[in-house]
Amino acid sequence: MSEKDLSSLKVNQDRLMGDIHHTCQWDTGERWGTASTETGMSRLSLSDADKEARDWFVETAKAQGCKTTVDTMGNIFAVRPGLCNDAPPTFAGSHLDTQPTGGRYDGILGVTAAVEMLKVLNENWVETEYPVGVVNWTNEEGARFPISMVSSGVWAGSIPLEHAHNLREVGGGTATMKSELERIGYLGSVPASHTSIPMAAHFELHIEQGPILEAENRKIGIVKGVQAYRWFTVTVRGGDCHTGTTDFKNRADALLAASKMILQSHRAATRMKALASTGILTLRPGSTNTVPGTVRFSLDIRAAKDETVEGLEKQLKRDFAAIAAGEDVGNLNEGAIGFHEDCISCVTESARGIFGDKAEDLTKSMISGAGHDSVYTSKRVPTSMIFVPSKDGVSHNPVEYTSPEDCALGAQVLLGAVLRYDRM
Amino acid sequence: MSEKDLSSLKVNQDRLMGDIHHTCQWDTGERWGTASTETGMSRLSLSDADKEARDWFVETAKAQGCKTTVDTMGNIFAVRPGLCNDAPPTFAGSHLDTQPTGGRYDGILGVTAAVEMLKVLNENWVETEYPVGVVNWTNEEGARFPISMVSSGVWAGSIPLEHAHNLREVGGGTATMKSELERIGYLGSVPASHTSIPMAAHFELHIEQGPILEAENRKIGIVKGVQAYRWFTVTVRGGDCHTGTTDFKNRADALLAASKMILQSHRAATRMKALASTGILTLRPGSTNTVPGTVRFSLDIRAAKDETVEGLEKQLKRDFAAIAAGEDVGNLNEGAIGFHEDCISCVTESARGIFGDKAEDLTKSMISGAGHDSVYTSKRVPTSMIFVPSKDGVSHNPVEYTSPEDCALGAQVLLGAVLRYDRM
Ligand SMILES: NC(=O)NCCC(=O)O
Ligand SMILES: NC(=O)NCCC(=O)O
Repeated sequence: MSEKDLSSLKVNQDRLMGDIHHTCQWDTGERWGTASTETGMSRLSLSDADKEARDWFVETAKAQGCKTTVDTMGNIFAVRPGLCNDAPPTFAGSHLDTQPTGGRYDGILGVTAAVEMLKVLNENWVETEYPVGVVNWTNEEGARFPISMVSSGVWAGSIPLEHAHNLREVGGGTATMKSELERIGYLGSVPASHTSIPMAAHFELHIEQGPILEAENRKIGIVKGVQAYRWFTVTVRGGDCHTGTTDFKNRADALLAASKMILQSHRAATRMKALASTGILTLRPGSTNTVPGTVRFSLDIRAAKDETVEGLEKQLKRDFAAIAAGEDVGNLNEGAIGFHEDCISCVTESARGIFGDKAEDLTKSMISGAGHDSVYTSKRVPTSMIFVPSKDGVSHNPVEYTSPEDCALGAQVLLGAVLRYDRM
Repeated sequence: MSEKDLSSLKVNQDRLMGDIHHTCQWDTGERWGTASTETGMSRLSLSDADKEARDWFVETAKAQGCKTTVDTMGNIFAVRPGLCNDAPPTFAGSHLDTQPTGGRYDGILGVTAAVEMLKVLNENWVETEYPVGVVNWTNEEGARFPISMVSSGVWAGSIPLEHAHNLREVGGGTATMKSELERIGYLGSVPASHTSIPMAAHFELHIEQGPILEAENRKIGIVKGVQAYRWFTVTVRGGDCHTGTTDFKNRADALLAASKMILQSHRAATRMKALASTGILTLRPGSTNTVPGTVRFSLDIRAAKDETVEGLEKQLKRDFAAIAAGEDVGNLNEGAIGFHEDCISCVTESARGIFGDKAEDLTKSMISGAGHDSVYTSKRVPTSMIFVPSKDGVSHNPVEYTSPEDCALGAQVLLGAVLRYDRM
């Protein structure tokens, strides 16, 4: 297709927004406004609602003439044939699971925009050189099963299948990824692997989840990479004792120690221009008049550079040991990621095709604060991402919002980028 | 009875220990040693196991010739008639509920020692001047329904019945005290009130739960009173946001604020020679990569003097407000308590009857760090308590331990104190 043909292909904004909000009927979250779409989302991975969203995805992709494949991690790949089908498809995709108090755009925009791409290609009778595909990755959020992007991680060969299958849901439940995949009927038989399901490239449209694009009045983020991060579970062991009869000298208060650790992680991260956050904390036994003997908390540390994350981890290990006899178990370790030049230039060209002279002002080359499945695909195939603005930079919160215009713009850039890569 | 007759009445140590360990078959807790009795207890109030322990208590008291009454808080009063039954009984008692990770002695010793008193009186055909009784109070621990000593509080007229009935179990369950009383068949019809069920006096044998008696090589604590305490539930509201994309400036991290408050309560209490403890902390939404928007935690503050507790509360209200926009709800407020001279002297005399010349060395006049049902009975009737040593001062922990000899000594002092009061 010529540049002119490409620019005649238009994303249908209303149809895209219709798909987004249609899929948000499954485990709608907290209401924050009066309009029917002004709610958050609460669709944990592999829940009944996630099954409904998956069923919608499979049916829609089939209706668009795609062949769908489910792998052993429940990742769903939908492929639309090209003129030549000897080479692997160029994929666009993201995830349909959400945080427990998440919004309507994180992940969902990326999948629905990829579905919109299929619809645009079909209604314009476009034949691509090679196949193009859409992928829905399982448990990207890591909210229910505590490794984010775990299923693209298995696909990339970075995380062993068995380890992922045995991941237990957070909060003391007994369900594992494997048992839940089976329960909802999405444990496929094709190995979750880049060798069984090869890709030519992976493009992911996503909301920025941060405040930069909005603050700088730009429309499109051309994502060059993702900051590094690591997740830990820290267990602090003290001893249960009576709150009224035990003086401070004779206590081993696990919560007091955990509080000091959380403050110290914040202080050290501030000093090192990194981030440190605790999102989960549980304690035992949990009685007003018993000093807690055991506390367990999550620690999420991030920075643009691998060395900074490593330095912060070392620092906190020393600090935590000084605060108490603690034990920490690393369970996720993501180095900083740089995306592929070819993909980045497809995105850049696609944006230029839309914005023309204004491209310089309306786009920004940036790195991602959050992890995405594109982190893992980038280990195996050329990959890049496209960001659209997040209102007030808010995400992982029901009020997460990106305007319909910006959603459609992002989808348009995605479409152009995939077709450009297909041509390359 | 003469002093000589009194001293001929002997507590049966094996029978007492047999009763203690027999009742500990119902919701046995964590094992800490190899002997069959070397475990903790986990018998939350109004659970199925609590019902079994209550049934045992009622049957045993009836077998000892007592009339039993259950009031609207499930408190169980067992009365053994005296020569003259025109005046109210002198009671001994405590509680059969435990902490989730509690031990075998806290409360249980006091009830079983009072039952042992009945057995000693019966096997020696003793007729008391007035009736004597044994009471088992409901939910003393405050571990399941978050007001400690709530049912003696209703009996004393200090806590409204309805407020107590509507108390909901901690940890997000839907059971209330009333629904659980009904469920296990212990919602009695007699009003829980000191007017419906009057007492001449209340004596309570209890383990010390602190280290003083053991450290000073003394056997019996003659308890003059109880330190003051208050319980609060503090709610910290911030906002959920993404841990990877939200810089520290743009966060309202409820857990970071709660951690600061917990540290500050510890610092302020240390400075004021008081105690401050957090035993429960829950947060929302609870996801590794979402900064928690809401945290709720318990705060238990104590000191020997009312003024100190009040001063600490005021100080913390200021400090917490400075740390964040917080909201605290007081739900328990116990002033410092002084016990009754007559009861204290019955205990002192009883100990002197046993120890003779060594009484000075082997007993100690002390105040209680923990709250007890005797706090509430003391508001209505002459009351005092007897403490026996706690190994290493440990309580609210499975390894809580008091030797059989010390349990029996305490029971012996209790028996002598009740009979002395009966004579008075
Ligand atoms: N995009 C997103 O929220 N991904 C979850 C993984 C992370 O915590 O960064
Ligand atoms: N004795 C005892 O542990 N009572 C519970 C009330 C308190 O917290 O002091």
